[in-house]
Amino acid sequence: MSERKKTNIILFSGDYDKAMAAFIIANGAAAYDHDVTIFATFWGLNTFRRDEQVTVKKGFIEKMFGKMMPRGANKLPLSKMQFAGMGPKMIKDVIKKHNAMPLPDLIEMAKEQEINLVACTMTMDLLGLQEAELIEGLEYAGVAAYLAEAEDGAVNLFI
Amino acid sequence: MSERKKTNIILFSGDYDKAMAAFIIANGAAAYDHDVTIFATFWGLNTFRRDEQVTVKKGFIEKMFGKMMPRGANKLPLSKMQFAGMGPKMIKDVIKKHNAMPLPDLIEMAKEQEINLVACTMTMDLLGLQEAELIEGLEYAGVAAYLAEAEDGAVNLFI
Amino acid sequence: MSERKKTNIILFSGDYDKAMAAFIIANGAAAYDHDVTIFATFWGLNTFRRDEQVTVKKGFIEKMFGKMMPRGANKLPLSKMQFAGMGPKMIKDVIKKHNAMPLPDLIEMAKEQEINLVACTMTMDLLGLQEAELIEGLEYAGVAAYLAEAEDGAVNLFI
Repeated sequence: MSERKKTNIILFSGDYDKAMAAFIIANGAAAYDHDVTIFATFWGLNTFRRDEQVTVKKGFIEKMFGKMMPRGANKLPLSKMQFAGMGPKMIKDVIKKHNAMPLPDLIEMAKEQEINLVACTMTMDLLGLQEAELIEGLEYAGVAAYLAEAEDGAVNLFI
Repeated sequence: MSERKKTNIILFSGDYDKAMAAFIIANGAAAYDHDVTIFATFWGLNTFRRDEQVTVKKGFIEKMFGKMMPRGANKLPLSKMQFAGMGPKMIKDVIKKHNAMPLPDLIEMAKEQEINLVACTMTMDLLGLQEAELIEGLEYAGVAAYLAEAEDGAVNLFI
Repeated sequence: MSERKKTNIILFSGDYDKAMAAFIIANGAAAYDHDVTIFATFWGLNTFRRDEQVTVKKGFIEKMFGKMMPRGANKLPLSKMQFAGMGPKMIKDVIKKHNAMPLPDLIEMAKEQEINLVACTMTMDLLGLQEAELIEGLEYAGVAAYLAEAEDGAVNLFI
């Protein structure tokens, strides 16, 4: 067990607002000198998709999931008040207006602060997401790796 | 306080994907030798409903809740990409294809691993769910029982 | 670090049922003699809005958010089975019938039990919510204050 406190966040949600909350807490905890891990699973993996299309071989259902799921942090919907895309635009407008950080910048900051960004390999398999489709700088692991960190975690959250 | 570490998961959500995540983490933690408890409350109780109709006496609103809520783990919707039932079918297809475990099997495994499956009696009352309508092997308790476990928990999650 | 155990709940959700769960756990933990904090952020802030309209100066987008978001605990929607407002009415009916506490009473009880009710200043800024629009008895703080509590928390939840 390391001397530093640990914050471990499971990012299950693929919503812009929830991912923002996850990365704001994570960046705050890193500034607080915690060892921080964001473990992205299920729809949370969409946060780590590249925004350009990547050509990879896939089965039919996996292709459909790939087409239906948002491609990257900037394209995520809101958990509330989506309003056919107006909600995310409004949130991004107020973020800019109040000099807050949009999600892609929060992810960049997380990398700079050496937060561990982990993609859940089991759900990558299920949803047919491949490493080539995800952003650089990720680790790849399963639930055992999450638990090894979380069981010593000071702050464990499921978002 | 027991020597073994504890994982306590509140399963509030009645979504197939979120319940899967809860049971995958729970089964992983049990394999890690944690004492594991899943405390199902609100819509999470639907995960524990029997899939056949059970005749019990109920008030009018309780009957309506009973009719409107999904009957058991296999009938839960997805939290995202429900698409009039196509989403859950797609998820179940990829689960089968990748030899992953569907939710009912994950629940079976949880029982075999002696994970404590607890139904929240307060919300059972509210939603009009009775013990006869739920699967076997559950414990029945309230928030005080949850807190007694959670205050020593190594991993506490709200899903 | 205080001798008393701590329960820290991030209330991100603005749903009636999820806010109920948060306040039931919080009140239970306070009865268990924990130091309890509910840190409301994003849509969770709507739980703390006054139900009457308050005249404050706002920009255009902030006004729109203000109009679109529910005004106070009693007006929150359900996370499931909203059914054009019938769901919340059904839940409130069964709460009354079973002598359970509706959300505004749970909030009152939280205040009586000296639970710390904190409004996240960063998301107040983003959503354009001002102190005058929120109920009395709140503290105002950011993610650093949350982490200072949570890193010693016995029970940390994200709801």
